[in-house]
Amino acid sequence: MNREAMGEAPVGVFDSGVGGLTVAREIMRQTPNEKIIYFGDTARVPYGSKSKETITRYSRQIVRFLREQRVKAIVAACNTASAYALDEIEKELDIPIIGVVKPGAKVAAEATKNGRIGVIGTEGTIGSHIYSTYINEIDPGIKVLGKACPLFVPLVEEGLWQDPVTDEIATRYLSVLTDSGIDTLILGCTHYPLIRSTVRKIVGEEVTLVNPAYETARELKELLEKEGLLNGKPQELGSNRYQFYVSDMADKFQTFANSILKYGILSAKTINIENY
Amino acid sequence: MNREAMGEAPVGVFDSGVGGLTVAREIMRQTPNEKIIYFGDTARVPYGSKSKETITRYSRQIVRFLREQRVKAIVAACNTASAYALDEIEKELDIPIIGVVKPGAKVAAEATKNGRIGVIGTEGTIGSHIYSTYINEIDPGIKVLGKACPLFVPLVEEGLWQDPVTDEIATRYLSVLTDSGIDTLILGCTHYPLIRSTVRKIVGEEVTLVNPAYETARELKELLEKEGLLNGKPQELGSNRYQFYVSDMADKFQTFANSILKYGILSAKTINIENY
Repeated sequence: MNREAMGEAPVGVFDSGVGGLTVAREIMRQTPNEKIIYFGDTARVPYGSKSKETITRYSRQIVRFLREQRVKAIVAACNTASAYALDEIEKELDIPIIGVVKPGAKVAAEATKNGRIGVIGTEGTIGSHIYSTYINEIDPGIKVLGKACPLFVPLVEEGLWQDPVTDEIATRYLSVLTDSGIDTLILGCTHYPLIRSTVRKIVGEEVTLVNPAYETARELKELLEKEGLLNGKPQELGSNRYQFYVSDMADKFQTFANSILKYGILSAKTINIENY
Repeated sequence: MNREAMGEAPVGVFDSGVGGLTVAREIMRQTPNEKIIYFGDTARVPYGSKSKETITRYSRQIVRFLREQRVKAIVAACNTASAYALDEIEKELDIPIIGVVKPGAKVAAEATKNGRIGVIGTEGTIGSHIYSTYINEIDPGIKVLGKACPLFVPLVEEGLWQDPVTDEIATRYLSVLTDSGIDTLILGCTHYPLIRSTVRKIVGEEVTLVNPAYETARELKELLEKEGLLNGKPQELGSNRYQFYVSDMADKFQTFANSILKYGILSAKTINIENY
């Protein structure tokens, strides 16, 4: 395939489930010409409490599926997959792949003034210390404090985005970070932007909240430009501009997706990801 | 294999993760001579929010694994797997298999005096209406009210067994049941016995709480007796009396298991269940 034809190929985006839609949404905003093939691993969600080995195996299967759809680049829109699997998969792959962690780390390192950054995420992401690794590569003097927040994903999925229970749980999780005087906080899980206002209320107006989704979409755009892979042709709405695949529960995914995305999802197809 | 040799074979017990250990514990109590091979599908947990098709596929893989371990009978110690997969798998299998739903339904139907039974469980279990199906087979006049409680499992796994947040969430979930005058409540998920005291506080002393784990262990004992498969030889502690397998995160499983079971778990082994 030549570069121009490659440019018209879709971008592959994957996540453990629905959370990565917050990243897909940013990609739609920042590069409106790009086609997207999204995969959500709803049959094996969540990723955040599982091991590096398992998440790497799952991510490899998804990458094989996306390659079969002839994507030109892949975005791992899941912090846990980015933390655990990206380095290994990058080596095996002949197209570009980016995760959400490195872009998030970069903007946080630029944003902090007092050199104290907090990170919230799943047990996997926090346990991997990946954000501090990347941030300290940029500036070894920055102190990074991580806090796993395992109940945030279930609370978001239960729809308790603004609720006293979420306030209470968030207060418990975040107190160790606010007490230590961070001035920047990374929302290190794709579900968390959906409870941004709760987090904001607790950490106060002075703390900069970093949503890696925005930076990831920007990095994707830069990457596609650099590689000459940006799609020059404006896309028609509808048709096969945005395609959604899941490993289970397509209907539920569709409902959730339609509450997040501005464009109606025509349909989500179910595939058996274990076959890849 | 003759009956006596078969009697010495282990019982297979499976669950989506750690919850089924509350059932294994009852089996250990009621039939102390039996060897147990336990499998927890920690790489794909939870089951409660996934589809019938997916849960049936997962359960089939686990049954294949347990058959390979030469178990003499299988207990599906997961309500969602019992609700979705048991009927189909039973037809395909040449050894006895029992679930937790039918025993729980039976004892609840016997316990109710006013003919109003509540059931709490995962979205899958409640959505399947399996408890009401079984209960109404016994007595069509009984009214069964189901309520899915998706946050209970994450709250239990986060260790908030006695906590104001769990109280608040439980109050919200259970109010529709208490308002409707149930006199019996089935704890229709293997995690729920761990927050029994919270549930008790909210529903009051007059409501009978049914824990299907107890009845399931009793039914297993009766089944093994009837089939002449009870193990006559007392087992030594240790050795390979109880064996634990998981699909991921063996260390975490071991810690949790040791907090639930009276016998220390020597080790849990990890297998790749997708290969079965």
